[in-house]
Amino acid sequence: MNSPAKHIGLIGLGLMGRPMGMNLIKAGYPLTVWNRTASRAEELVAAGAKLAKSPQEVAAASDFLLTIVSDPPALEGVLWGDCGAMQALKRGSIYVDSSTVSPALARKISAACAERGVRFLDAPVTGGDWGAKKGELVFMIGGEVDTLKEAEPILKVMGKKLFHLGPNGAGQTIKLAMNSILALQVDALAEALALVTRAGIPGEKLVEVMQSSMARSGVLDVKAPNLLKDQYVPSFPLRLMHKDLGLALDLANQLGVALPATAAAREIYSAVKGAAKEDLDFSAVMRFWKH
Amino acid sequence: MNSPAKHIGLIGLGLMGRPMGMNLIKAGYPLTVWNRTASRAEELVAAGAKLAKSPQEVAAASDFLLTIVSDPPALEGVLWGDCGAMQALKRGSIYVDSSTVSPALARKISAACAERGVRFLDAPVTGGDWGAKKGELVFMIGGEVDTLKEAEPILKVMGKKLFHLGPNGAGQTIKLAMNSILALQVDALAEALALVTRAGIPGEKLVEVMQSSMARSGVLDVKAPNLLKDQYVPSFPLRLMHKDLGLALDLANQLGVALPATAAAREIYSAVKGAAKEDLDFSAVMRFWKH
Amino acid sequence: MNSPAKHIGLIGLGLMGRPMGMNLIKAGYPLTVWNRTASRAEELVAAGAKLAKSPQEVAAASDFLLTIVSDPPALEGVLWGDCGAMQALKRGSIYVDSSTVSPALARKISAACAERGVRFLDAPVTGGDWGAKKGELVFMIGGEVDTLKEAEPILKVMGKKLFHLGPNGAGQTIKLAMNSILALQVDALAEALALVTRAGIPGEKLVEVMQSSMARSGVLDVKAPNLLKDQYVPSFPLRLMHKDLGLALDLANQLGVALPATAAAREIYSAVKGAAKEDLDFSAVMRFWKH
Amino acid sequence: MNSPAKHIGLIGLGLMGRPMGMNLIKAGYPLTVWNRTASRAEELVAAGAKLAKSPQEVAAASDFLLTIVSDPPALEGVLWGDCGAMQALKRGSIYVDSSTVSPALARKISAACAERGVRFLDAPVTGGDWGAKKGELVFMIGGEVDTLKEAEPILKVMGKKLFHLGPNGAGQTIKLAMNSILALQVDALAEALALVTRAGIPGEKLVEVMQSSMARSGVLDVKAPNLLKDQYVPSFPLRLMHKDLGLALDLANQLGVALPATAAAREIYSAVKGAAKEDLDFSAVMRFWKH
Repeated sequence: MNSPAKHIGLIGLGLMGRPMGMNLIKAGYPLTVWNRTASRAEELVAAGAKLAKSPQEVAAASDFLLTIVSDPPALEGVLWGDCGAMQALKRGSIYVDSSTVSPALARKISAACAERGVRFLDAPVTGGDWGAKKGELVFMIGGEVDTLKEAEPILKVMGKKLFHLGPNGAGQTIKLAMNSILALQVDALAEALALVTRAGIPGEKLVEVMQSSMARSGVLDVKAPNLLKDQYVPSFPLRLMHKDLGLALDLANQLGVALPATAAAREIYSAVKGAAKEDLDFSAVMRFWKH
Repeated sequence: MNSPAKHIGLIGLGLMGRPMGMNLIKAGYPLTVWNRTASRAEELVAAGAKLAKSPQEVAAASDFLLTIVSDPPALEGVLWGDCGAMQALKRGSIYVDSSTVSPALARKISAACAERGVRFLDAPVTGGDWGAKKGELVFMIGGEVDTLKEAEPILKVMGKKLFHLGPNGAGQTIKLAMNSILALQVDALAEALALVTRAGIPGEKLVEVMQSSMARSGVLDVKAPNLLKDQYVPSFPLRLMHKDLGLALDLANQLGVALPATAAAREIYSAVKGAAKEDLDFSAVMRFWKH
Repeated sequence: MNSPAKHIGLIGLGLMGRPMGMNLIKAGYPLTVWNRTASRAEELVAAGAKLAKSPQEVAAASDFLLTIVSDPPALEGVLWGDCGAMQALKRGSIYVDSSTVSPALARKISAACAERGVRFLDAPVTGGDWGAKKGELVFMIGGEVDTLKEAEPILKVMGKKLFHLGPNGAGQTIKLAMNSILALQVDALAEALALVTRAGIPGEKLVEVMQSSMARSGVLDVKAPNLLKDQYVPSFPLRLMHKDLGLALDLANQLGVALPATAAAREIYSAVKGAAKEDLDFSAVMRFWKH
Repeated sequence: MNSPAKHIGLIGLGLMGRPMGMNLIKAGYPLTVWNRTASRAEELVAAGAKLAKSPQEVAAASDFLLTIVSDPPALEGVLWGDCGAMQALKRGSIYVDSSTVSPALARKISAACAERGVRFLDAPVTGGDWGAKKGELVFMIGGEVDTLKEAEPILKVMGKKLFHLGPNGAGQTIKLAMNSILALQVDALAEALALVTRAGIPGEKLVEVMQSSMARSGVLDVKAPNLLKDQYVPSFPLRLMHKDLGLALDLANQLGVALPATAAAREIYSAVKGAAKEDLDFSAVMRFWKH
């Protein structure tokens, strides 16, 4: 039933969406795509994807819809804006959203889907554009287990691990918690580097010692070179991390959970984002101390 | 010259000092020890160490003095208090302090040693009591390279890695930066766990996903089990981490470097320490949200 | 032209809206009202107000519409929800919103009004229910000066001071900034009281000294008694202050302005709100340290 | 007994000490003074004070010793350094310290005085150099009531209000709490001004509205002009406020009381102090956002 004959729709052709779509095409799935900026679809169209005129047209053509856009307003626009997808989702189809949005929005989408007989999974991803290209993303999934089982063959084309975390919203909750940790880890490294360099010691010394200690981390391997070189080519863009910190803090404040260090870090990311003229990686938080 | 005939003095027989002393004895060094609470010396004395009556007596008997005590006042007491070690340090000897104290105190000690013709290294360690037992500590060292070369055979008995980081004070600076990062990493994990569990998702889910992501870390491996089980048997005691955060913030404030997230985390550690009735591991920061 | 013959509509009959409406009736204005919970209208209806069935009906009956509801979603519901007011606002009428919402929402409302030939002022208030009863509110106003001039006779019935602060959104911006300051002032007092009482000194001593110093403030006069007695009968409810801090931080993050202490305070208010079972005054932030 | 015949010693001739000494001379007290920088004594010597060669000499000449120096190390130097005052304090004399230091140091001094038969009061002041000149300082006093009664005639020459707050240390505790509040109030104003000005609204508008609201305060009256003009001629120097915030946080951390917003504010003061090239008023915290 999940044979390549299943028609897939893909909305959102950014850094993540394009390689995810390419992997779906390679796996033999018929693919219909849409993006606000149509030019982003060129590579996929050249590879065989059909370019739709609207989110609505994508949904109408799909047994399985996947969206991955930049933030909650973009997702609400795609679903409920002019020629939005929601009204055209087919009864019996599956809709998976891999954007990072609030758990509340995930639950709102889930309810709207249920009214139309559509099964929904919130399934944000981690792994970066590199993971998207290799088909090695990690999916954090909220929704029904049975829906996940049916979606699994398609998701496995794009990801190496599918974590089922609870009902709708759970995927987003874990994603926001994860990104808070990443943001704080990078900020912690930046604060420590600011301290040692102001004390006259090269930052490389700190990183070298950390590699031999419990302070070692994935973040250290991946982001320390950026901080030491003061170069922040976007891999996970600052503006998205800043948005995700906002979503995490919104969630925490709704639940009445104090997150003091996360809140402190968010203000630093905010200051750096406010001062930045170009698109930067979130590790540019280091600039708070370099400028 | 660094043959086992060299007489070593060891002051401070806590969780770290005892196994470090045992390794020195095993390596064949004549060892004289002192501890404020003398009973802590029993195991070492049974293994052949000589128990001195004062820090002064230890210093007078040593070609190489090692101190590892809990905080700056303890170290100042050992060096300059009644029957303190400083006045008895032998010209030409080497003194290595492995306590975690301020870089300023390290430099003050260095100056006092220089006046007496004693060479000093600040050399705090990381690796925990487990690393101390295995002789696999990591030494973070400030001081003269030549002094380090001469001390190396002895330090290698206790540690697997010796990082030379700069002049006196550099070892302490890097140590404080390291511990700030560890404190923030554990706090970040605790904040994220507080968020997901309040949202109704088991904390284990978050940890499981993190292990597959860039958010993986040494801290996650070692401390996440504590947080999930809400059990905090001291490995790195809360009171020492809280003290180290204070030293890191003191240093930062002297240098005029803002450390917003470190400062936020320190207040949480403070609240937990203030409410704790027993000795806890620093990962007990999680209690801020569990109580 | 602004004679009592002008028909006024009032939506939102909470702690503030009811006394504001009563003052309008006393001044002789024909008044039509609506509230989600209709029973809140009883006193006003008894005094001569007409109770409408929907926000739409209020707008249709009014030359001058005033809204004062609890938060942005409530305001959006009143304006654009089922039987919302926006569609019925009369060309040439004036609409004044005294809720505290985001400047962005104020500008969105302004644009929607302009399309219908309606003039809009954002005009949140300060002064509490006491000020509302006495007709001594302070209005913080964004919008056209000419509109304000025309609205002035009506607003003066409810307020003693009308500050014109800039274009639409400026009233809300100043209101959010004001409330951030109030929230931080009360939190500062709470932190200081927590410190001195833990040190064994009665909090009354601190308050007494403050009254003789530059640390004296309106907040000290009004809120210190609550903190000292640990009694928080709502005057300015915690849930609203917490919401306003969120709006202030949202605005700051959009603008890229770091507000470190405001962010720290917001997390404390959040923790207290999360733990509270009843409706409390925002000065209950003190409970963070008392429980 | 407290007649002008009583000999007074004064150590510390800064912005506060000089006018305090002048008032003592005007009241007819024989005065002996000392200051690290002797030139600061000129005005007082011209008015009749005797200039001593050391703190020891001052103490030896005094029935009543008053010290007011910049920080704990300065005070420890004056008391226990070379030719320090402590060893020369006369049995039966009274010693009053008006520096701002830690409660712990106040208690240490108290114990040392008791050993010598000297009665001690910790009595930091507020009111600024203006209050010092007018003899209208506010004294925050810890110690024995009887000692205060005996000291009162002399203190009343310099101050308008004497608050007895508890045993030794209580004066310092209240002073640190007070200054935390002042620091947070000014920071709150600065954060709010940063927000409104970035939003395009003149800061004067915010200040004007605040004056009509519960957000009015002594700080607003005294410091808002500095922030609006971006001019920070020292009245209460930034370096002293930064030091006092450190003392307050040290005390809180010893007591296990979390002060999240105070800690956040301290980091901002630290950043501004770190970047400042000249001596500034503490209201220069505003520079965090202006540069």
